[in-house]
Amino acid sequence: MRPSRLPVLAAIAFLTPVLGARSPSLTGFHPDRVAEQYNLESRFDALIDVDEIGEWIERMSARPHPVGSAYGLDNAHFMVDKLSEWGWEARLEEYRVLFPTPKLRRLELLGPEGFVADLSEGPVENDPTSEQSAEQLPGYNAYSIDGDVTGELVFVNYGVPDDYLELEKRGISVEGKIVIARYYGSWRGIKPKVAAEKGAIGCLMYTDPEDDGYFRGDTYPAGGFRPSQGIQRGSVADMPLFPGDPLTPGVGATADAVRLELDEAPTLTKIPVLPISWADAQPLLEALSGPVAPEGWRGALPLTYHLGPGPARVRLQVEFNWDLATAYNVVAELPGAERGDQWIVRGNHHDAWVNGATDPVSGMAATLAEAQALGALYRQGWRPRRTVIYAGWDAEEPGLLGSTEWVEHHASELGEHAAVYINSDSNSRGFLNVGGSHTLEQFVNEVARDVTDPQTGVSLQRRLRAAMILSDEPEDRERAGGGGDLPISALGSGSDYSPFLQHLGIASLNVGFGGEGDYGQYHSIYDSFAHYERFMDPGFHYGAALARVGGRMVLRLANADRLPFEFSALASTVAGYVDEVEELTETVREETADENRWLEEGLYALAWDPTDDWIAPELEEPVPFLNFAPLRNALGRLQTSVEVFERSRDDARRLPVDVAADLDRALYASERALTRDHGLPRRPWYVHHIYAPGFYTGYGVKTLPGIREAIEQRSWDEAEQQVDIAAEVLAAAAEAVDRAAALAASE
Amino acid sequence: MRPSRLPVLAAIAFLTPVLGARSPSLTGFHPDRVAEQYNLESRFDALIDVDEIGEWIERMSARPHPVGSAYGLDNAHFMVDKLSEWGWEARLEEYRVLFPTPKLRRLELLGPEGFVADLSEGPVENDPTSEQSAEQLPGYNAYSIDGDVTGELVFVNYGVPDDYLELEKRGISVEGKIVIARYYGSWRGIKPKVAAEKGAIGCLMYTDPEDDGYFRGDTYPAGGFRPSQGIQRGSVADMPLFPGDPLTPGVGATADAVRLELDEAPTLTKIPVLPISWADAQPLLEALSGPVAPEGWRGALPLTYHLGPGPARVRLQVEFNWDLATAYNVVAELPGAERGDQWIVRGNHHDAWVNGATDPVSGMAATLAEAQALGALYRQGWRPRRTVIYAGWDAEEPGLLGSTEWVEHHASELGEHAAVYINSDSNSRGFLNVGGSHTLEQFVNEVARDVTDPQTGVSLQRRLRAAMILSDEPEDRERAGGGGDLPISALGSGSDYSPFLQHLGIASLNVGFGGEGDYGQYHSIYDSFAHYERFMDPGFHYGAALARVGGRMVLRLANADRLPFEFSALASTVAGYVDEVEELTETVREETADENRWLEEGLYALAWDPTDDWIAPELEEPVPFLNFAPLRNALGRLQTSVEVFERSRDDARRLPVDVAADLDRALYASERALTRDHGLPRRPWYVHHIYAPGFYTGYGVKTLPGIREAIEQRSWDEAEQQVDIAAEVLAAAAEAVDRAAALAASE
Repeated sequence: MRPSRLPVLAAIAFLTPVLGARSPSLTGFHPDRVAEQYNLESRFDALIDVDEIGEWIERMSARPHPVGSAYGLDNAHFMVDKLSEWGWEARLEEYRVLFPTPKLRRLELLGPEGFVADLSEGPVENDPTSEQSAEQLPGYNAYSIDGDVTGELVFVNYGVPDDYLELEKRGISVEGKIVIARYYGSWRGIKPKVAAEKGAIGCLMYTDPEDDGYFRGDTYPAGGFRPSQGIQRGSVADMPLFPGDPLTPGVGATADAVRLELDEAPTLTKIPVLPISWADAQPLLEALSGPVAPEGWRGALPLTYHLGPGPARVRLQVEFNWDLATAYNVVAELPGAERGDQWIVRGNHHDAWVNGATDPVSGMAATLAEAQALGALYRQGWRPRRTVIYAGWDAEEPGLLGSTEWVEHHASELGEHAAVYINSDSNSRGFLNVGGSHTLEQFVNEVARDVTDPQTGVSLQRRLRAAMILSDEPEDRERAGGGGDLPISALGSGSDYSPFLQHLGIASLNVGFGGEGDYGQYHSIYDSFAHYERFMDPGFHYGAALARVGGRMVLRLANADRLPFEFSALASTVAGYVDEVEELTETVREETADENRWLEEGLYALAWDPTDDWIAPELEEPVPFLNFAPLRNALGRLQTSVEVFERSRDDARRLPVDVAADLDRALYASERALTRDHGLPRRPWYVHHIYAPGFYTGYGVKTLPGIREAIEQRSWDEAEQQVDIAAEVLAAAAEAVDRAAALAASE
Repeated sequence: MRPSRLPVLAAIAFLTPVLGARSPSLTGFHPDRVAEQYNLESRFDALIDVDEIGEWIERMSARPHPVGSAYGLDNAHFMVDKLSEWGWEARLEEYRVLFPTPKLRRLELLGPEGFVADLSEGPVENDPTSEQSAEQLPGYNAYSIDGDVTGELVFVNYGVPDDYLELEKRGISVEGKIVIARYYGSWRGIKPKVAAEKGAIGCLMYTDPEDDGYFRGDTYPAGGFRPSQGIQRGSVADMPLFPGDPLTPGVGATADAVRLELDEAPTLTKIPVLPISWADAQPLLEALSGPVAPEGWRGALPLTYHLGPGPARVRLQVEFNWDLATAYNVVAELPGAERGDQWIVRGNHHDAWVNGATDPVSGMAATLAEAQALGALYRQGWRPRRTVIYAGWDAEEPGLLGSTEWVEHHASELGEHAAVYINSDSNSRGFLNVGGSHTLEQFVNEVARDVTDPQTGVSLQRRLRAAMILSDEPEDRERAGGGGDLPISALGSGSDYSPFLQHLGIASLNVGFGGEGDYGQYHSIYDSFAHYERFMDPGFHYGAALARVGGRMVLRLANADRLPFEFSALASTVAGYVDEVEELTETVREETADENRWLEEGLYALAWDPTDDWIAPELEEPVPFLNFAPLRNALGRLQTSVEVFERSRDDARRLPVDVAADLDRALYASERALTRDHGLPRRPWYVHHIYAPGFYTGYGVKTLPGIREAIEQRSWDEAEQQVDIAAEVLAAAAEAVDRAAALAASE
């Protein structure tokens, strides 16, 4: 916490962003309007009040506020009141969603020695909200089923499919066992899903201090990292199937919605699950014997990590109140003056597992600061060309419920009107981090060019470029060193952009700062204001920076003469994905051939330590050659269309009003083109065929997901079908670009 | 410990190695003599008694036996008696060497909280020799100077030069401080050497459980890995300058040798040094604050690793008895019948830090088994063509003293007569591991082809090839997958081959098995027979395998019609080294240019966390282009000579007796050709210009050391001079090969 180290330059730079004098171009703006827009942004920046951001973070994180809580509703009312006061048409939109809370949580090590897990976190010094035990939800995983299971324990590392391959090589099955997995390495919901697929009867998840604890840095409250008793709460619904309310897939969970019975709900876990601290995990891991875990599996606890099974035997009991709760989404609008039927949507969730100063309030407070400044500009006479909608989502934590239900409920209007969705969530000191639709990569770079980093006084883009050039990743160095636009990442899941992007095909961005906070409070009672102001963003300067980024994006999207979509980054990025899936196929083919040959030659039996109980893998079917030609042809077509669009579009040309509106619609339809109504195999809710969360990674993105996951699962027929589908969506995107080019060129 | 799992096949295979029926060729043997040689080897194998190997390991490790100890002399007499009994002309050769032992060892943490280090190991259950405290040397580092120093502590990771660059980036100096380094990452003597160069006043070395402890596996006595109180003893003399007695560099430490004064001895440390257990290190590391250590520096202790300096302040006191001790080398000969002036030397050391069942007795016992079997063959009438010398070196542990003094003492005879030296040291269950002169790579492969692995029943070569094909190293996979000879590694230092190879240019090999023992006893009181038979080589089968390898090498070298040197592996291996040093120069040039540009652009200041006290590095001089042409030309000449030799040598041709002897001398002179009398820069003792221990790595080899280290030190003029010298030695080697080719082709 050294706010005094902020260079004076930065403080000045906030108020004087690059002005018309240098007049860089702004995609989508007529050159004559660029100076005016910069002037507006300058006024906007001046309206961001860093102290107020801090006050709102403190206010909204003052008490625990998960969905269904009194303080969650209080926060929702606070935001509606503020937004209304600032000139927005603000309202609550309510959904009734399944939200289980714990009735019984008990974990006992039955032998060789006895131990009963504590399962509590407890207050720490100088963190007053850590004492609010009466209102805190204890450590649990939402959408674990009820259960009372007893069995031998097996350590499964991160609990992802590859980990089970390692166990199988050692002849270890989890059938009828209780697994203990460490957090990280995948989204948490993957762990009980895979464990159940492998026959386990229960799943414990613990935080290893290597991933999130003393190995990273000093623990709370001395430092910001997770203490021994810290528990990571979190959802374990099968979100890669669909997010949102488990009882109302695909439709808004309105009061009168048709609901599934609990026992029909496909996203609940198949086995009971409980998250524990490493203080509770250590006696369990110490009680395991069997083979020593592979080197990469060993964490930072002072013990030898063994795989088991047993002799540790545990009994796990969990029971939940299977109640519905009301999710209160805050929704506020500023009407568009000219193209009011085109919506720019901006959101952040407001519910927290406990106090949530970082997650989500740090992002929510910045979003409010944007809304306050936009409201002030509006009251001063500014009128957005397009309609602006600001949202505070409830019930994100249990599984993106507030946003998903809203999106499902308003699917047809959003499908027609929503041009772009901009999400944020947790925020901290560090580097700008943007993921999303590559049609907006150039747009994002223009914003990053024009906002100043609070610590260094240079543009966000320049600081990020410096870090990428010094990165250990050759790809980052090459991309950043070239001097062009910096890449944005593809989005998987993990926050409220998912329903917009992946269920409706609305071009989306997720924005935030990070990398320099001491982030050890995630989903624990220690995600408090006390923690936030010491370890995440002292002085709230990055809260203000996020408001400048998010608000500037909205201002440009709302005001532009045409929506600032560009397609060359989409084409080149997808070309990279096509290379990747082709290379993946080659790699799998070569590895399969090698491994089959080694098996036939008996090499494993010779190389492995014969005192271990190794089991050689089975022979695999040889990998066929796949026909990627349709995809290459479609990509070529897209690239041609992109070139035509780039020649035809000219932001200096003034189009007739109706043509301009049609052009906008053609532009944002390009993202819809990347979807198919039938969705992805086995998960029709996910309709986007370029970006999806991985079926076995969770938050982690899979690009060209249909093809990539079919290859990973060795489903060769499905891979070829998915190549054809991906070719279709690229051809459809090319058509959308062609339409846009034709409109842009019209007189 | 599952000796019952040994396949029956293996037990049979011991007695029936590949016989004449298949008659693979044996380099250096006339085709008519191959069957006879195989028959002899078969008789040799049958004479190896696995139980006796176990008995000798138990006998020789029954009491502590460092140089100067009563039991060390007892072991030496035991070996001389056995060798004499077996028909060898055996004797002791004595040297008087400096061997300091501790008078005072004290380490206190003065603050913030007080702690006095225990510095003792102590007995464990079921390990009777761990109780012999009266005879055990305590944990200390030989050739640390005396000292009593007090200062703040700094954690320096492995304490190698790159680690200090990281500290400098963070503005941390060790000037006037006491450093705490973890063991591993370099030979231990490098750590106090570099620390002193950087201005530190004292050096602690501890074993982190990540490198050697519970992170690896269960700790002793439950498992084989190092327990919390285990201390790694060891020499810290500046061996990369010269090994052997610090007071008699370059000459044998005979009773009447001229000796340096203690304060003139250049290989003693400049600062006091003490090794400690992790139990003693943990309170010290916990008392450090300052920046959190870089991720790769953090070990497996349950704490946040900080760099310091301080607030931990420690006082380190060490005092030694600076006495001379008598090193007793055991030397035994079987005279050569035809070319008795050509010597095949085989050795292993017999002194240990404490009981040393693994290090060195496991290798010494196998060497004795070879000598017993060779003696039996001799008594049955076999006569080696060349003279065979078996040695048990004393005082290896403090710094290769026994072997080095013997080599220096007998330098001129050895220079004339010694054809090959074969070393072994510690041995355990696992894979054959051979390093040495690449002129013998083909020879080594023929031996590995003809000895059976005890656990799998296939040849050592086949098992090793299987492991290399399944390795994660692409280079291993490629080399092994091709089906040709497996590579042998280049030798740095760390055992008694060093004076033979690097001081006299005698072609050398170091052989042993390893990789499947639970090796946590290194240089501690737990290197006991109890540990060895449970965790290193249950049943002593790999002791027997080592005897079959070492003895077979000796039998072939002693009997061959011509010495089995071949040069294509030398030429191709050195070509690889030349590629490496050229690539290294390119890499350093590019990195220097990049880093200078980034510095000039101020990227570090932008990318680093401004709340940390980062200090950007200095601009470096640009890297000039070096003239590698002389080296390439010399390499080309060598390759041509090798081709001529390969065409001209024909093991089926019978050469006149004197020509055959001359050919042998030309062959082994090829290794002498790789040396220059002036040695390497700043360390004239090391005369070999292809292989040397690294000046800043210690045991780790540097190939083409003059060139490579000049590049690493950015001494560009020296690098060009060393290119010329390396070109000279390659040309000289080519001449030796030409002479051999001419002799081989003579009628």
